[in-house]
Amino acid sequence: MFNPMVLDSHKWVDTSGPYMDIVVSTRSRYARNIVGLPFAPYAKPDELAKIVETVDKSIASQDVLGASDRIIIAKVPRLERRYLKESRIISAELEKGGEHRIVYLSHECNRSVMVNEEDHIRMQCIMAGLQLRNTLTAIDEIDGRMDVSVEYAFSEKFGYLATCPTNTGTGLRVSVMMHLPGLALSQKIDKILSLVQPYGLTIRGFYGEHSEYIGDFYQISNEVTLGKSEEEIVEILDKVVTQILTREQQAREQLFAKKSNAIDDAIWRSYAVLSNARMIDSSEAMKLLSRIRLGIDRGYFSSFTHSELNKLIIEIQPAHLDLREGGNVGSEARDIARAGLLRKRFHGIISDN
Amino acid sequence: MFNPMVLDSHKWVDTSGPYMDIVVSTRSRYARNIVGLPFAPYAKPDELAKIVETVDKSIASQDVLGASDRIIIAKVPRLERRYLKESRIISAELEKGGEHRIVYLSHECNRSVMVNEEDHIRMQCIMAGLQLRNTLTAIDEIDGRMDVSVEYAFSEKFGYLATCPTNTGTGLRVSVMMHLPGLALSQKIDKILSLVQPYGLTIRGFYGEHSEYIGDFYQISNEVTLGKSEEEIVEILDKVVTQILTREQQAREQLFAKKSNAIDDAIWRSYAVLSNARMIDSSEAMKLLSRIRLGIDRGYFSSFTHSELNKLIIEIQPAHLDLREGGNVGSEARDIARAGLLRKRFHGIISDN
Repeated sequence: MFNPMVLDSHKWVDTSGPYMDIVVSTRSRYARNIVGLPFAPYAKPDELAKIVETVDKSIASQDVLGASDRIIIAKVPRLERRYLKESRIISAELEKGGEHRIVYLSHECNRSVMVNEEDHIRMQCIMAGLQLRNTLTAIDEIDGRMDVSVEYAFSEKFGYLATCPTNTGTGLRVSVMMHLPGLALSQKIDKILSLVQPYGLTIRGFYGEHSEYIGDFYQISNEVTLGKSEEEIVEILDKVVTQILTREQQAREQLFAKKSNAIDDAIWRSYAVLSNARMIDSSEAMKLLSRIRLGIDRGYFSSFTHSELNKLIIEIQPAHLDLREGGNVGSEARDIARAGLLRKRFHGIISDN
Repeated sequence: MFNPMVLDSHKWVDTSGPYMDIVVSTRSRYARNIVGLPFAPYAKPDELAKIVETVDKSIASQDVLGASDRIIIAKVPRLERRYLKESRIISAELEKGGEHRIVYLSHECNRSVMVNEEDHIRMQCIMAGLQLRNTLTAIDEIDGRMDVSVEYAFSEKFGYLATCPTNTGTGLRVSVMMHLPGLALSQKIDKILSLVQPYGLTIRGFYGEHSEYIGDFYQISNEVTLGKSEEEIVEILDKVVTQILTREQQAREQLFAKKSNAIDDAIWRSYAVLSNARMIDSSEAMKLLSRIRLGIDRGYFSSFTHSELNKLIIEIQPAHLDLREGGNVGSEARDIARAGLLRKRFHGIISDN
């Protein structure tokens, strides 16, 4: 049986990157489809099998990902699939399960190739901090190696063809996960975020399209991939993200200078609950961890790194806790386990406040 | 200038009494008026002065209170008056200030005689825990000594006459301050409290008639003093309070047995905020201290006594904090001072949780 817990020790989240105080992660992905075969949602089982076979051959012959695992989604139980989704290793689409679906995952867990997701091939790279060009370079390398043996569905007029029109073109989606408590606390977040749309960018929460902005996490990504080059897309993201980053820095400075009592109160109350609660749900925990992240910037909790906090946000998600506890333990037991994990992690991290 | 802070070291609240885990305090008072003079609200200044003179003479000649202080309300600044009200030493009526108003306060601060409150004379005794007969005995003694030299307004038909009809009769009001978090948390409080009214009893919050039931504190007292003897009034209170006390004990036992996770969570979160917050208002602080009180019963915070917690509830009130800070410091600074006081008090009280 596949045991996702073994992945724990070498996640992308353990690494570090630029602007970690504000940017959690950067993710780039390409959507690709193989010529002459129906898009995955419309393909028959034997066609899906053919797609898997084509990708298998390419990955084996071109050493596309380097050292990697091949995970057959149909053999991964529901809870473990959810775990992989929470770890941001597979998409919500692949979490659903289904036959003839595969994910190749590099041993560092930062690069992956999903087969028979919405498109035949989704190749992605996720890195800690703000690393637009590094993640693009990484998927360019995957894409280039696969291109040697796989013939992509490509139109001179539209570019790479994809199941969903928004992915047709470059097939590139770049997402930057930002942590913006400063702008949120100073009620500037809505204005800032409204400036993003005219650039063709969109905003989601920590866990994708339908998640709220829990814990002041905002995932900014390009909405369409058509009509712009890969480089142009990255440049727009870079420009907008850098602007938001500067505004967030200013907002935090202003808050620390002008509302230090209220900010310190919010930070220390969050620390208090994290180190003492006996039951806590994931949404509340994310909100409290968000304040601890801000606390690091304020000069507290110096024994914590941003990487550790980012990892903790993933570790407190439901499937992560269920797997620690040995199975689906139900909501109350999970809330107790979550509180126990957080209490252990936060206990004694400061000698005096 | 009168300095109420010197009273701090010998308050009634430092003492202990029966059922301290559920009963904060018992207070008994008599309303008395002097024959041949108008009720205080209708009396002219020279008549009010005459009342003060009569009481002064009686207290001096009969050693009514033993060692005591004579405090002239008109000479007590507004903030200090509020401090005395918060300490439950003077009434809301006397807090308003005004000429020819006096309070005699025993050195233990548990017995007092107020002059020209709503009635000419209000004599009261407050004790920690459930002490119905002890408080009654104490005011009986005051009443008996004063009766030697003061002729009370008394009617064979109605008993002692008072400004307000509800105080006419025995002039006795007995109030028991109960802490009922068990009944409140198990949603049984409304039902229990509705049983009180048919006995001619009424319920108020911690600070009297217009305060809400903040922190699950419920002050139960007789509504009228006419038609029943002093002994009957005390017996009714005793019967009803004992019933509520038993129900509260049962409710706590059930909660501890069946909802221990949720209860522990509530208790430890309260401890967490009290020992870490940087700003806190009095209403929130009372609610959190209420949970700590419950925590003592649950077996935590063994270094805390109920007396200390009862005292803390008084010390976090606005005027108490203002006087510590040297004057009216305003709402934000007061919330910061309150958080600082609580943090200091709760810091390190437990080595491990």
